[in-house]
Amino acid sequence: MKLTVYLAGEIHTAWREELTDKVRTLDLPIDFVGPMTDHDKSDNIGEIVLGEQVDAIAKDEAASQINNLRTQLLMKKSDLVIALFGEKYKQWNTAMDASAAISLQKPLILIRPQALHHPLKELSNKANVTVETVNQALKVLAYVFE
Amino acid sequence: MKLTVYLAGEIHTAWREELTDKVRTLDLPIDFVGPMTDHDKSDNIGEIVLGEQVDAIAKDEAASQINNLRTQLLMKKSDLVIALFGEKYKQWNTAMDASAAISLQKPLILIRPQALHHPLKELSNKANVTVETVNQALKVLAYVFE
Amino acid sequence: MKLTVYLAGEIHTAWREELTDKVRTLDLPIDFVGPMTDHDKSDNIGEIVLGEQVDAIAKDEAASQINNLRTQLLMKKSDLVIALFGEKYKQWNTAMDASAAISLQKPLILIRPQALHHPLKELSNKANVTVETVNQALKVLAYVFE
Amino acid sequence: MKLTVYLAGEIHTAWREELTDKVRTLDLPIDFVGPMTDHDKSDNIGEIVLGEQVDAIAKDEAASQINNLRTQLLMKKSDLVIALFGEKYKQWNTAMDASAAISLQKPLILIRPQALHHPLKELSNKANVTVETVNQALKVLAYVFE
Amino acid sequence: MKLTVYLAGEIHTAWREELTDKVRTLDLPIDFVGPMTDHDKSDNIGEIVLGEQVDAIAKDEAASQINNLRTQLLMKKSDLVIALFGEKYKQWNTAMDASAAISLQKPLILIRPQALHHPLKELSNKANVTVETVNQALKVLAYVFE
Amino acid sequence: MKLTVYLAGEIHTAWREELTDKVRTLDLPIDFVGPMTDHDKSDNIGEIVLGEQVDAIAKDEAASQINNLRTQLLMKKSDLVIALFGEKYKQWNTAMDASAAISLQKPLILIRPQALHHPLKELSNKANVTVETVNQALKVLAYVFE
Amino acid sequence: MKLTVYLAGEIHTAWREELTDKVRTLDLPIDFVGPMTDHDKSDNIGEIVLGEQVDAIAKDEAASQINNLRTQLLMKKSDLVIALFGEKYKQWNTAMDASAAISLQKPLILIRPQALHHPLKELSNKANVTVETVNQALKVLAYVFE
Amino acid sequence: MKLTVYLAGEIHTAWREELTDKVRTLDLPIDFVGPMTDHDKSDNIGEIVLGEQVDAIAKDEAASQINNLRTQLLMKKSDLVIALFGEKYKQWNTAMDASAAISLQKPLILIRPQALHHPLKELSNKANVTVETVNQALKVLAYVFE
Repeated sequence: MKLTVYLAGEIHTAWREELTDKVRTLDLPIDFVGPMTDHDKSDNIGEIVLGEQVDAIAKDEAASQINNLRTQLLMKKSDLVIALFGEKYKQWNTAMDASAAISLQKPLILIRPQALHHPLKELSNKANVTVETVNQALKVLAYVFE
Repeated sequence: MKLTVYLAGEIHTAWREELTDKVRTLDLPIDFVGPMTDHDKSDNIGEIVLGEQVDAIAKDEAASQINNLRTQLLMKKSDLVIALFGEKYKQWNTAMDASAAISLQKPLILIRPQALHHPLKELSNKANVTVETVNQALKVLAYVFE
Repeated sequence: MKLTVYLAGEIHTAWREELTDKVRTLDLPIDFVGPMTDHDKSDNIGEIVLGEQVDAIAKDEAASQINNLRTQLLMKKSDLVIALFGEKYKQWNTAMDASAAISLQKPLILIRPQALHHPLKELSNKANVTVETVNQALKVLAYVFE
Repeated sequence: MKLTVYLAGEIHTAWREELTDKVRTLDLPIDFVGPMTDHDKSDNIGEIVLGEQVDAIAKDEAASQINNLRTQLLMKKSDLVIALFGEKYKQWNTAMDASAAISLQKPLILIRPQALHHPLKELSNKANVTVETVNQALKVLAYVFE
Repeated sequence: MKLTVYLAGEIHTAWREELTDKVRTLDLPIDFVGPMTDHDKSDNIGEIVLGEQVDAIAKDEAASQINNLRTQLLMKKSDLVIALFGEKYKQWNTAMDASAAISLQKPLILIRPQALHHPLKELSNKANVTVETVNQALKVLAYVFE
Repeated sequence: MKLTVYLAGEIHTAWREELTDKVRTLDLPIDFVGPMTDHDKSDNIGEIVLGEQVDAIAKDEAASQINNLRTQLLMKKSDLVIALFGEKYKQWNTAMDASAAISLQKPLILIRPQALHHPLKELSNKANVTVETVNQALKVLAYVFE
Repeated sequence: MKLTVYLAGEIHTAWREELTDKVRTLDLPIDFVGPMTDHDKSDNIGEIVLGEQVDAIAKDEAASQINNLRTQLLMKKSDLVIALFGEKYKQWNTAMDASAAISLQKPLILIRPQALHHPLKELSNKANVTVETVNQALKVLAYVFE
Repeated sequence: MKLTVYLAGEIHTAWREELTDKVRTLDLPIDFVGPMTDHDKSDNIGEIVLGEQVDAIAKDEAASQINNLRTQLLMKKSDLVIALFGEKYKQWNTAMDASAAISLQKPLILIRPQALHHPLKELSNKANVTVETVNQALKVLAYVFE
């Protein structure tokens, strides 16, 4: 059995690489997918595809529809979603993706620092599992294959 | 035809009263439901129901499960969801509820100040309609009955 | 038993009034809903709600999202959809709405002139019933209550 | 990860070949499926299977049911739908297929010339992404794999 | 609580009247709906709506689509389906409707004479309850309200 | 807004009456439904409907199908499920009904004594809210209407 | 692309072999599944698994549940269903399976002799395609791959 | 065709090994998945992942969410569920998993000793097939491939 896991959230740190490397070390049969992690490219993809837009709002709208297409497509092909909240940024996309995973009945692991416990308490209650570190999420993944 | 509308998000301003009053003035056949807007009660409902908890985390977990039950129940009975993002707070619950509405195929109106355009661009792209004021949302509601 | 029927398509002729009047004459317990039939208002609703837009495309985008919200909401509350194709216009919205009705497992009556038989043959094959006149659709409605 | 993409719409130009060739050049792991693009065969398939029919209407009905079976089967196996509207023809099948894709929660890319902006504004608003050329759609496909 | 019950199957005996009368005597809050029970009308409804058809097959096709619309609409509004098989006729419609009820997750009561036990054993296994008489079905209905 | 609540589980104590009385005192707009609480009738309903059966197993099979029909029908009409586990009996039906409620996306309140914490930990984790007394469940119900 | 096709209905003639052979000759990438075609084994499977039953009814009940499990499992894994009605037998299972396929949104090809046109007219109207011979069904399958 | 089968229930006897061995002997193409069968590990997995918890209840809650994630993920990837009830323990998880399988429309085989007939009669009625031994379940599996 092979799993596909969507890695939602935080794109400014290297947590995806950390998780992917450790999963490879353990030799777990998992494929990872996720959003565009090059922030500039993610913001500019609308103009890359459609050409220059009239203003910043049109530019954002063009980018967001392509990013949403990517997320919808890849999340649907996934068996599990891991969503990581960092300490910075508004991260409403992360909350949106995590909630979509729940509605799609995809199991959800939430990674968030202890400091974010209170504002994330409702989302945490809906997630299958809430952890604080990538290592803990890794242990959950490993457990599924034991 | 009567509609039930769930008002998600921001609980620190009186936007629900503003909308409800105006809808009454226009005599539109709409019932409004929504989350507990008394912030203290919302935070304490777990201990109100279950008694004192061992620590703040247990208290939050107890509250969040009851708030989630309320939201799930009332949103399912609604025909439309309006989600309002204010300028402050993390508001991950608002993003979570808005995303759940989309997944439940409930039409969604997003109200957010222009200043939040960029961080909400993906959610805005998924919403049916994005507006900036309660008055604009009201106009959309009125249009459905014309 | 009361039915709600969504009347999709053609907004330049008075077929909705014709059907509604005849249903009232027969005293059938049917409520009708449908799109905005004032064409100008339908095209301008985006600017009515959101204010003047930068160009015709932005104006259309603003209008279309509000019209789509209305259609999604009203069709979901309906038990049956009737879609009428006239001789003029591109009418892609009508095809879109008829197809959405099929996907939502709402029974669909298609009204179209004989002349449109060939280009509508696949949609007609998917509809429950295809007729040529409003009177024939009326007979189908009446039959449900016999 | 391999994707299957359904190419709906316009069968009188070589846009499918153009897209398929470019995807091969980029070495993207995509399989394409779609409707019968030999127009005569598509119109005659009813009689090819069932023998001569009594009149043109029966012939069309026989053909449409087989074309619909093909579309339903192949679209269900697809991860993404691309629908192209050309300048000519009524193209109600294209609108029907695009709307079915949306209802099946398949991501949808709409390709249409700028000239068709207004009559397609509601469908465009429902599509994930709207572009004007095959090349732009290609860029969206490539982006999913980056 | 009020229930709507769809009465599928056999239209040549008065079992619907028998059940309806007894339910009224017991004063149970049940509305009954079902297919057209005037056999001639059911066979002719296609021509009644669409005018004379070219042959018996076209006449049947016209009638069947209207009968299917009626069944789909009324069954969807029902809370429970009762399907009765008599001793005569092929009754494939009854099996089709009973199977549709199961797929729609509507509870199903099957009424069939003991003599039909063997050929109906798979359908009976899928039904919630199988009985032999209208009186027995009545007792099940009454039990729901106790 | 009126709610319908299904009361699953334990039929040997008067907890349903306790809850119903208190809800009436608070004047909450809630209708309660649930399984047959007369244990003998529940065990004998198969023979009451179908006549004497060949052995105890056939008698049980006859009863269980009618009880399952009742549960399926009433739970589907409910907005919320409350499931109570007592100290005695195997109560596999209660676990089955609670799990069905979760799968149907009905909010679920679990009532169980502290002593049953460990064997019910997985079901409790899936329930929206777990409490220990009828009074606590009542407070949750009341909170939905505040 | 590979398809799995469920062959429902008639088990007393060799139509499955005929179709399978021809598909192999055309080298179409299709796997066929279907019910147990050894009639005695199908009738006796309950006793083969569970041992001798008390009477013919218990024997049938035991067999039917295992046959239904097989059908449910294999049909769910299929992309398309072909259901063949012969001239003899009651064939209610065939109607049940065909209707289940429709409800599962699996494309359905109905094969039936012209003589059965009238009693199958409603099921035929719901099927995607109705043909009279195995050869015609084969042509439809081949068309999907062209 | 390859099947994936989830083996729910009883983790204190070696029934999974018995079934797996026999399936291998028969060379049936079946992959088995299931819950963690090391009871201590299953109870401690919460602390293994998250570190020491404040009390037994928090420890159980931490474990149950990870066990539920595992079950949800593996059951969704399965084609069939086999649930075994032994003579001991409360086994509410087994009832919960069996009921979830039914709701997910996964075929379900129930294995239980004759002695548990009465308390499991409703669950047994909902299962596709109820047997008493692993050998009998094996025969059902083998039958699917015949």
